[in-house]
Amino acid sequence: MMQVMDQSPPTVGILGAGQLARMTYQASIPLGIRLSVLAEHARDPAALIAASVACGSPHSLESVTAFAAGCDVLTFDHELVDTSILHTLEEAGQRVCPTAATVAIAQDKRQQRALFSQYGFPVPAYRPVHDVGHLLDFANDFGWPIVVKARRGGYDGRGVWILDGSAAASGLIARTASAGIELLVEEWVPIECEIAVLVARRISGEAVVYPVVETVQRNGICHELLAPARVEAAVAAEARRLALEVANAVGVIGVMALELFVSDGRLLVNEIAARPHNSGHYSIEGCVTSQFEQHLRAVLDWPLGAVDLVAPAVATVNVLGGSDGFDPAHRLRHALALPGIHVHLYGKSPRPGRKLGHVTALDQTVGRARERAATAAARLGGTALVEVPT
Amino acid sequence: MMQVMDQSPPTVGILGAGQLARMTYQASIPLGIRLSVLAEHARDPAALIAASVACGSPHSLESVTAFAAGCDVLTFDHELVDTSILHTLEEAGQRVCPTAATVAIAQDKRQQRALFSQYGFPVPAYRPVHDVGHLLDFANDFGWPIVVKARRGGYDGRGVWILDGSAAASGLIARTASAGIELLVEEWVPIECEIAVLVARRISGEAVVYPVVETVQRNGICHELLAPARVEAAVAAEARRLALEVANAVGVIGVMALELFVSDGRLLVNEIAARPHNSGHYSIEGCVTSQFEQHLRAVLDWPLGAVDLVAPAVATVNVLGGSDGFDPAHRLRHALALPGIHVHLYGKSPRPGRKLGHVTALDQTVGRARERAATAAARLGGTALVEVPT
Repeated sequence: MMQVMDQSPPTVGILGAGQLARMTYQASIPLGIRLSVLAEHARDPAALIAASVACGSPHSLESVTAFAAGCDVLTFDHELVDTSILHTLEEAGQRVCPTAATVAIAQDKRQQRALFSQYGFPVPAYRPVHDVGHLLDFANDFGWPIVVKARRGGYDGRGVWILDGSAAASGLIARTASAGIELLVEEWVPIECEIAVLVARRISGEAVVYPVVETVQRNGICHELLAPARVEAAVAAEARRLALEVANAVGVIGVMALELFVSDGRLLVNEIAARPHNSGHYSIEGCVTSQFEQHLRAVLDWPLGAVDLVAPAVATVNVLGGSDGFDPAHRLRHALALPGIHVHLYGKSPRPGRKLGHVTALDQTVGRARERAATAAARLGGTALVEVPT
Repeated sequence: MMQVMDQSPPTVGILGAGQLARMTYQASIPLGIRLSVLAEHARDPAALIAASVACGSPHSLESVTAFAAGCDVLTFDHELVDTSILHTLEEAGQRVCPTAATVAIAQDKRQQRALFSQYGFPVPAYRPVHDVGHLLDFANDFGWPIVVKARRGGYDGRGVWILDGSAAASGLIARTASAGIELLVEEWVPIECEIAVLVARRISGEAVVYPVVETVQRNGICHELLAPARVEAAVAAEARRLALEVANAVGVIGVMALELFVSDGRLLVNEIAARPHNSGHYSIEGCVTSQFEQHLRAVLDWPLGAVDLVAPAVATVNVLGGSDGFDPAHRLRHALALPGIHVHLYGKSPRPGRKLGHVTALDQTVGRARERAATAAARLGGTALVEVPT
């Protein structure tokens, strides 16, 4: 396969066609890579702009197998895939990056905790949960509040509950049991800030570690990225070291994002995503090599690119759907009227809380970059001042 | 139309599907713009990667009219279009940017010379040519050698001849007359260096002028771009002033490139391209807003972006097809092994002298950026040293 890939433009297939696939598509163009997407819906963000789109479910062995047949490498826009399908493909000789084994870890918060504990990485105290007694026992040992998480499938704050007592615990167990949702419980820790580190890793083992980025979350949803993160140099260095160790431990091929908490001055590993991730959007304009280009290079086993910041500071602010159903595309020119703002729209239908786009600004300080990006995001979000030059 | 464009993602149509359309497509994605291309061939660079591709000739009224019907704005990848078709579309209410009148000027070197002379812009002495006597008279007045140019259609050194005497003049007239090629003649001037300036201009008149870039040509083909150009500050300022005046004179809407000679310390206007241009490829990574994003913003009458360089120096080196028919895609990983190199491949079949891609490097000095970009281009071009880490 290496021989083939060296001799003609390779084809990379992405399961899923969301904004990550859309931005990866953009990165594939200058590299001459053929990129195909398997979209569930014809109006998915990447399906709108890609030349090669297959429609099908990532849960259908038939759809995924047919899609993979045309691809040198298969990779992912999300973790909502059936790893048994991936295993079947791997056994048939299909190159899947990251591997089914890595995807299985990324899908499963309980397995992540177990693996990270085994390696001695710092994690919050946690336990599996099967009934309300487990929650009460845990609270007895660690105190209320407790943090309960769905073992699989949570994102953007979904699948995470902070419980303050036994009534809440009983209620949650009743609701999740009936929905067949498996749980784990973690100690609640005071969070000073959340940070993330991207790692890209090739099959040869070559790996690069991006600068530490601060992720500002509200209600479990990432709102802002600030790079470099405003943490002590020693904390940043430790976070980068941990990210590389985690990447090696899970054997990721491609880009991985490690999310961490800074709590009482120490780092706690939260979770990984084994693919390009919202926390890396700042890298498109902010780093020499974006996470999307890097992911393609890594899954194709090509040399990885430099990850340095290209400016002293970078801020990215997400544009989320509001309750009024506004479409940021309608207000694009108001954001573009601000100098040096990079706008990314995902082509999604507006829905409250949905990630519809992001904006990035580079500047001399994090504070200034953040202010400029936040102003632009506000203009896209309909909360701009009335007087805007267009 | 403004109302419609403010309310839903606009559709921009590009006549032509070469590498300029391909790179414009990339820039359209984050802005949520729908971009369609009219491709002559299904394997044209932009046709390979765009979701919306129509096949047809830019010389067919029927094809262009059908294509334009789905577009809010029509723009161009090249000047090889029939302006009578554009006039017809404009009369029917189609928005064409730049206008048919501007395209007509950009197509016609003789008209450019006349217009620029009329405005008092510095141009080499020139005259129209209808027979060999005109060439001999001109040489009599200005001396040999003389520079003869095809009035229309030349590019990459084609359509330009430097003649050293009457025999060469007679031969050229015989060849071009039989092919129906109209000519003009210009004085030969000693060229210290060639430079170019990009201007973007909206219909409202708002315009931005990019930094001056040095264009290193060999045999009339652009090989390298160096920004900032290594010219006196006063020369650079004058070049930017001239570029803005020329943009206003030709009424360009969108991006325009002005090419100039520096000769005996003074500037001479050479020619314009009324679209994104090879001389602006450095802007993709080198400027806050690339020429491709800027062109889209300008033709949509959106606020223009900042044009500052993002590093002290930028160098872009073109990758041209060699006589051995090598494909740079086969050697991509060798170029990517160099740190901080941005590779752009156009997906074209290799042919000798054909522009197949380019590479860009940012650095502290033009010399260092140039060396790094040239090394990467050499690796893509098959002239790399044997020992390359991959």
